[in-house]
Amino acid sequence: MSIQRIHFDDIPTFAMAPGVDARALFGERSMFNLVDLAPGSSVAPHSHPHEQLGVILKGVLVLTLDGETHELGPMDAYVVPGDVEHSATCGPEGATVRDVFTPVREDYRERASAGS
Amino acid sequence: MSIQRIHFDDIPTFAMAPGVDARALFGERSMFNLVDLAPGSSVAPHSHPHEQLGVILKGVLVLTLDGETHELGPMDAYVVPGDVEHSATCGPEGATVRDVFTPVREDYRERASAGS
Repeated sequence: MSIQRIHFDDIPTFAMAPGVDARALFGERSMFNLVDLAPGSSVAPHSHPHEQLGVILKGVLVLTLDGETHELGPMDAYVVPGDVEHSATCGPEGATVRDVFTPVREDYRERASAGS
Repeated sequence: MSIQRIHFDDIPTFAMAPGVDARALFGERSMFNLVDLAPGSSVAPHSHPHEQLGVILKGVLVLTLDGETHELGPMDAYVVPGDVEHSATCGPEGATVRDVFTPVREDYRERASAGS
């Protein structure tokens, strides 16, 4: 793995769900995922063994973690341990969120390289 | 490791260097580190085995990676593999940067819990 330097606007998007677009930067051990949720979009309940750290950059993210719902705004952050079920919707203006997955989501690497 | 939810403003700062203050959120496998560099501050050349991903939130970060200098602005991002020497200064208005370390920097956990 070599040094990387990139502007997030230069990273192609891939679709995580209808209205949910992501830009991913892959390290060897972890990855950034910058996620834009359009108004009315959502991420269905799911889980994965990867640890997920996240922080809200813009808008409101309504995040349900293991059955408990949290309304999060800019600079709110979370840690979702592996295998914890979670889902998300967003506020009327949508939301922008930066997530980190450890280890790298190889499924996202495939989707990011295929384009949206 | 359990679910965490916190606002970054509620995380106490610790000093990384004079004028360089950080707020850390620790997962089990990785951590966020939100770093504010005051104008004129710098981070001396150093390296660590941890992988480091980062993104500029505000201002300008002048980052030297393995001898090559990069002037980075908002939404510029980087991946620094483990054991690569790096240092940083900032622009005249300072800089705010969000870093991710994998694995967790246990030295930062100690400093964060001790306070600045």
